[in-house]
Amino acid sequence: MKNRTHIKDLKEQVGKEATIAGFVDIRRDHGKLIFIDLRDMSGKVQMVALPNHTEAHALASTIRPEWVIAVTGKVNKRPEKMVNTEEPNGEIEIEILRIEILGRAKELPFELGTDVGIDVYLDNLPFTLRSARSRAIFKVQSATVEAFRTFFSREGFTEIQVPKLIGDDAEGGANSFDIEYFGHTAHLAQSPQLYKQIMVGVFERVFAVGNVYRAEKHSTTRHLNEYTSLDIEFGFVNDHTDVMRVENEFLRFLTAQLTERCAAEFALLGAEIPEIPAEIPAMSLREAQKLITKETGKDYTSEPDLEPEHERFLCAYAHEKFNSEFIFITNFPTAKRPFYTYRDEKDPSYTKGFDLLFRGVEITTGAQRIHDYDALVSSLREKGLDPEKFSFYLQAFKCGMPPHGGFGLGLERLTQKLLGLANVKEATLFPRDINRIDNLLSK
Amino acid sequence: MKNRTHIKDLKEQVGKEATIAGFVDIRRDHGKLIFIDLRDMSGKVQMVALPNHTEAHALASTIRPEWVIAVTGKVNKRPEKMVNTEEPNGEIEIEILRIEILGRAKELPFELGTDVGIDVYLDNLPFTLRSARSRAIFKVQSATVEAFRTFFSREGFTEIQVPKLIGDDAEGGANSFDIEYFGHTAHLAQSPQLYKQIMVGVFERVFAVGNVYRAEKHSTTRHLNEYTSLDIEFGFVNDHTDVMRVENEFLRFLTAQLTERCAAEFALLGAEIPEIPAEIPAMSLREAQKLITKETGKDYTSEPDLEPEHERFLCAYAHEKFNSEFIFITNFPTAKRPFYTYRDEKDPSYTKGFDLLFRGVEITTGAQRIHDYDALVSSLREKGLDPEKFSFYLQAFKCGMPPHGGFGLGLERLTQKLLGLANVKEATLFPRDINRIDNLLSK
Repeated sequence: MKNRTHIKDLKEQVGKEATIAGFVDIRRDHGKLIFIDLRDMSGKVQMVALPNHTEAHALASTIRPEWVIAVTGKVNKRPEKMVNTEEPNGEIEIEILRIEILGRAKELPFELGTDVGIDVYLDNLPFTLRSARSRAIFKVQSATVEAFRTFFSREGFTEIQVPKLIGDDAEGGANSFDIEYFGHTAHLAQSPQLYKQIMVGVFERVFAVGNVYRAEKHSTTRHLNEYTSLDIEFGFVNDHTDVMRVENEFLRFLTAQLTERCAAEFALLGAEIPEIPAEIPAMSLREAQKLITKETGKDYTSEPDLEPEHERFLCAYAHEKFNSEFIFITNFPTAKRPFYTYRDEKDPSYTKGFDLLFRGVEITTGAQRIHDYDALVSSLREKGLDPEKFSFYLQAFKCGMPPHGGFGLGLERLTQKLLGLANVKEATLFPRDINRIDNLLSK
Repeated sequence: MKNRTHIKDLKEQVGKEATIAGFVDIRRDHGKLIFIDLRDMSGKVQMVALPNHTEAHALASTIRPEWVIAVTGKVNKRPEKMVNTEEPNGEIEIEILRIEILGRAKELPFELGTDVGIDVYLDNLPFTLRSARSRAIFKVQSATVEAFRTFFSREGFTEIQVPKLIGDDAEGGANSFDIEYFGHTAHLAQSPQLYKQIMVGVFERVFAVGNVYRAEKHSTTRHLNEYTSLDIEFGFVNDHTDVMRVENEFLRFLTAQLTERCAAEFALLGAEIPEIPAEIPAMSLREAQKLITKETGKDYTSEPDLEPEHERFLCAYAHEKFNSEFIFITNFPTAKRPFYTYRDEKDPSYTKGFDLLFRGVEITTGAQRIHDYDALVSSLREKGLDPEKFSFYLQAFKCGMPPHGGFGLGLERLTQKLLGLANVKEATLFPRDINRIDNLLSK
C-alpha cells in the first residue's frame, strides 16, 4: 500500500494526516462518537469517527470486528485526562476522515480472545490465532528459532536442508508413518540424526531446523505427531560434556535475546524468562535415581529411564538446590539409547548421552556419537539391526569421521515451557495428533 | 577440542606451535619428506613430516586420505620459492611434531573429487559431498537461505512453522503422496500456501522455509519429489506487482550477500553471480507468446502456459534486450492457475499472477490471492472443488482478510541456476526421486 504509515510510527506524526490500515479490533458506539481500535502488524491505535465527517461516520457505524480497513485521519494528541500511559499509543487518537473497506468479515464464531476450551480453540485456529495471546506465543517462537540460527551460525555451523522422506526407518519401526512411494513403502523421518552425522564429515559443524514425525498413538498435553526439531551436530568433541556446554551457551544467548526482544510478550502471557546459570547442574541417571529413591522410599536405582513425575521432581530439586530451572541428566543405559550413542569407556553399559530437563519435562536429548566404523557396526548388531540396511549412512564412517556429538531440541515443547502453557498444542500453529489434522479428522 | 587452532587462523601464529585437527586431504611421499594437506571447516594447510621427528614421521607414513587427525606442529614461513600465492595458506607450512589419529577411513570408493557420473555421485553422497565442489554448492545454498530470512525479517515478516502433514490435498490429487494416518489417509503438503494465507490474518507478513512434496513420476534434471520452498505471503498489496517488487528487492539483496560472502565458492564453481536490474523486466503471457510466435513462425498465442524451450527463449531474449537474466511473465489464464489466484478485473479469464524465469527455467510462482470469502467460494466451485473440504482454510476469509499476495521460490532450483549446475540433484543434499531415496530404491 502506498503512503501507509505503520501504527507504531503514528506518534511521530501528531498534528498531521496519515493513512493506516489493519484489522478492526473493536468498535464502541458512544452516542455520536464511534470509537474503533485498529491493529496492524506493528501495534494498535484508537480512532474516533465524529459526526461532522458525515460519510466516514456513516461507514464507521457499519464496521465490525476483524473487518480490514484503510483509514486516512488526523493524528491528534489526546486530552490530558484521556491519556492511557499503559498503551504504546495511549497519548494519541486518530480522527477519522476517510475509510476504505478492504475486507469484510462474514461472521465470527465468538469474540476474539474469549477463553474457550482447547478443542474449540483448535477448531477455529484461523480465527483464534489472531488473539493477542496467540500472537505473543508465536512471536516468541519465531524469535527462538532466529536466536538458534544466529547463535550457531556465529559458531561456524552450516545450515543444512535434511530430507524428511526416508527409505528405511532407522530409529525403530513402531513410531514411524508409512508413505506409499511409487510402489515402495517410505517413511517420515523421526529425526535428522543420520543425515546430520553424515554432514559432520562434510562441514564439521551443522544445524538444521525442520519437521520430524512420531506416529505415537496417545494424545497428551506434551506430545505432537509432527513437530519442529532444532538440531545440531559437530565434530572434534572430547565427549558429551562439550555438547552440553554448547547447549548451555545457546540457552543463555536465547534468554538474553528474548529479554531484549520479547519482554512485552512474556508480560502479556504472565510468563517469566528463566535465568540460566553459567553451568547448568548435571547429574548421572544413577545419581538422580538415588535422590528419587531417597525422596519416595521406593527403589528406582535400576530403572532404565525416568518417569514423568521424576522429571518434575528433579526440576524442582535443581531449582531449590542450585537455583536452576534446567538440569542435565547424563549416562543413560546403553540398552535404552539408540545404536549410535557413544558408550562410556569406564562402563560400556552406560552411554555418554544426556537429557535436558526444563520446568518438569525433557526438552533435549543429546550425546556423543560412535564415530568408529567397526564399533558402529557392532552396536547395530547388538541392537538387532541389520548393518546392510544402514549402508548409505555407514559410508560416512567407512570414509573417516571425527569424534562428534549433538542434540535435538523440540521447539514447541521449549516454547510451551518458556511461556508456561498448559498444552504443547498451544505452542504449535497447526498441531497434528491422533484426532486432529486441522479439523478434518475430528469432524 | 581444547587449544585447537582453526586452520584459517594459523597465519597469525608463524614461529609458534599450534594444534590443528581435520581431515586428510592428500598425502604425498617425497622420499624422506612426507607432505600432508589437512582441511578443516575453515580452510586447508600443507604440513610436512620430517625424518628427525621419528615417531610422527612413522605415523605420517601410514596415514591415508579422509583419516581424521589432530596435529601439533610448528607454524613455519615457507621459503620464498615455495610460496603459493593462490592458496590462503600458501605462505606457511606446518612442521609436524605430534600426530593423534582420531578416526581412520576403512576404504574410499574412489579419489575425492573424481568426476564420476551422477548416479555414482548420488550413490556415494556421504563421501562425494566432502569434495570442494560440493561443499561450495551447499555453502552457497546455506547463504541463500540465510539471506532470505534476513531480508524478510528486516521487512517485518514473521517466520512461521507450517505443517507438511495435511488432511486433504488442496492443490490437486494426482501429485500428492498418501500417508497412512491412524486409519485415515493423510497427505504430504505440496506447498504451505493455505497456511501462509491464514497467517496473513494473524501477522500480516509471514515467511516459511520448509520441505514440500510432489509425487511426480518423471525423473528429470529439474524435478525433485521433495524440495525446499522459500515462501512469503503478505497483506495490504495493491496487486501482484507489489509481490514482484519485493521479490526483485530480495534478489538484489541476495546477490549482494553472495558477492560479499561466497565469491570464492562461485569462483571455484566457475559460476557468475547474476546482476539484477532495479526493475526486472516483465511481460504478460500473451505478449510473451506473440514474441515466441514471431520467433518460431508457429502460433502459440492461445496456449495456456509456456513450454520449457519457450522459457529458455524468453530468458535469452531478456538477457539480450534488457540485459537481465531474470524476467517476470504475468497474467496466466485463470484456467491454469490455482483457485486462490486473484483474477484481473479487466479480464477475469486472466490472473494477477506471475512466474519468474531465471537462466532458462521458472524458479518462482507468485500472485495476488483472492481475499473475499464469496469470491473464493465461487472460485472453488468453478474449479470443481468442494468448499466444505476447505472449511478450515475458509474460516480465515469468513473472519476478514486484507488484499494479499506472495510467492514460493524453489531453493534447489535457484541454487542450481545460480551455480550453473547441470542437474538440480547436485543442488540437493539428499535428493529423492522416483528411483532414489538415498540408495535404497536403486539397489
